[in-house]
Amino acid sequence: MNKQQILRNRPHGLPDENTWELIETETPTIGENEILVKNKYISLDPAMRGWMNDAKSYLPPVQIDDVMRALTVGEVVESKNDKFKKGDFVCGTGGVQEYTATDGRGFYKVDPNLAPLETYTGTIGMPGLTAYFGLLEVGALKEGETVLVSGAAGAVGSVVGQIAKIKNCKVVGIAGGAEKCAYLVDELGFDHAIDYKNEKVVHKIHEYCPDGVDVYFDNVGGEILDAALTAINKNARVVICGAISQYNATEKPKGPANYLSLLVNRARMEGFIIIDYAKRYQEGLSQMGQWVAEGKIKPKETVFEGIENFREIFLKLFSGDKKGKLVLKV
Amino acid sequence: MNKQQILRNRPHGLPDENTWELIETETPTIGENEILVKNKYISLDPAMRGWMNDAKSYLPPVQIDDVMRALTVGEVVESKNDKFKKGDFVCGTGGVQEYTATDGRGFYKVDPNLAPLETYTGTIGMPGLTAYFGLLEVGALKEGETVLVSGAAGAVGSVVGQIAKIKNCKVVGIAGGAEKCAYLVDELGFDHAIDYKNEKVVHKIHEYCPDGVDVYFDNVGGEILDAALTAINKNARVVICGAISQYNATEKPKGPANYLSLLVNRARMEGFIIIDYAKRYQEGLSQMGQWVAEGKIKPKETVFEGIENFREIFLKLFSGDKKGKLVLKV
Repeated sequence: MNKQQILRNRPHGLPDENTWELIETETPTIGENEILVKNKYISLDPAMRGWMNDAKSYLPPVQIDDVMRALTVGEVVESKNDKFKKGDFVCGTGGVQEYTATDGRGFYKVDPNLAPLETYTGTIGMPGLTAYFGLLEVGALKEGETVLVSGAAGAVGSVVGQIAKIKNCKVVGIAGGAEKCAYLVDELGFDHAIDYKNEKVVHKIHEYCPDGVDVYFDNVGGEILDAALTAINKNARVVICGAISQYNATEKPKGPANYLSLLVNRARMEGFIIIDYAKRYQEGLSQMGQWVAEGKIKPKETVFEGIENFREIFLKLFSGDKKGKLVLKV
Repeated sequence: MNKQQILRNRPHGLPDENTWELIETETPTIGENEILVKNKYISLDPAMRGWMNDAKSYLPPVQIDDVMRALTVGEVVESKNDKFKKGDFVCGTGGVQEYTATDGRGFYKVDPNLAPLETYTGTIGMPGLTAYFGLLEVGALKEGETVLVSGAAGAVGSVVGQIAKIKNCKVVGIAGGAEKCAYLVDELGFDHAIDYKNEKVVHKIHEYCPDGVDVYFDNVGGEILDAALTAINKNARVVICGAISQYNATEKPKGPANYLSLLVNRARMEGFIIIDYAKRYQEGLSQMGQWVAEGKIKPKETVFEGIENFREIFLKLFSGDKKGKLVLKV
């Protein structure tokens, strides 16, 4: 049998007990050219919240009564496709379910001997690629610059900061709580961390970045984005990767009131979507894998178990009750 | 004697009768290497409002009890500088006064036979350069794209639209009132114009740009910027040239609530300041002069007279009570 989380109702605000339904169906059979994947880990990402809205976006919304969309890493247990064989481990959009039947499009193989499987949902996966291309391409980071990153203890933000340190930059992270801040500085080598739950963010940014911010990598939006805009340098780049503070907003979000700082500082604010870099994934994954192997980047996952606990674990993305990549073990 | 408008008090909101004082002083005498310029036209620009605020910006604020800063075009009436001779006409930052003594830094000669002097405060001056570099460099305009411009009947916006037409683009302008809108379409060749005072801007943008907007050139900020963000295309460029709706705000302005459209559309929002293009002014002025000579761009100035009327005329920038470039004839 195949346990699946089905989208039943689009949430208004945070997902609740009516949003998804756990059902059991027959394990799918595969057709010509298909593979059957037994999902081992389900990646829980803030972007999933956006996929649930009935709005034009970079991907079509998850349809009502469809399996909830999610990235996964799993094992090929049956193959009628020449590109994959039984026993291969693969990443792809497997969905919140135990088994996925697919023609393999968008799936790629990963090596469980190089890194634990769950790391392929994080640092050597989409979040790592998002940090890599977002910081180096969209952010156009140069050696020696000052980088400020929000959501800094998260799957993307923690990697952004570590890549920036590899590039000899000064790095300041913003995260929620003293424990996360200590983790950033003591374990990941950030120069400073700001605890937005207990410190005045705008003051601390100016204290820690007296020469201004060259790249602000934003994962959160809201007041923290506005605070960061007060500290950007001439020709700064503000990378809009996400806005987790806004994803469950039930009222129209506040825009960044300080956006005219972009004018005064001849700066740019730019959004990006990682799928536009699909042709360069291999380059990014190789580099991330190498940095992990060299110990220059430390992967971090918080793993919870049980597909039946999906909703409650998913909500930890928004409560901040995790460090690094949030992963659901099937 | 030299009439001067002196900044006495920084305004909170719109400048009022306490903001400037008209005084008369001795006509200045010039020293070694200096010139004396008799100002003929004083350029009235929205940026001047920003220069009055006591805030860090791209130029230092005008100091209290100093002559109000302004661009001017005037005639050299005395010269001890080899680069200029008596009878030359020059543009520079002459200030709101009848006579300017200067060492000539930042001043350049203009030819009164090629265009009326007042045009050098507009289409063949800073506003024209702002349109040229803002649209083509910051906006990275490509042939055949769709351009939306706000403040479209103003000194910069009207030129933005005309350059975009030269580049075979579709052009939609946003302006206040039916007369200005008719001017944009009938006289300047815009494809459509939206009257923000009488029409629902967001609906009209989508009606006139069914295939979306590739470059949005923003002179106004506020709700119109927010409306434009709902219509941008993938990889769109939002050029932040100004935000005239916000310059006299007495409360913190609203930011663009729809800024996450930049993420979904992998778009960028970028500010710029024309002085960064100083090394390329000659290129821009030559091109603008050529387009004007060829009749491809129609300069437009609204000229009022009398340095004693400076404040009341300056306020027309914000009331919208003018077309094209607002100029004060000395």
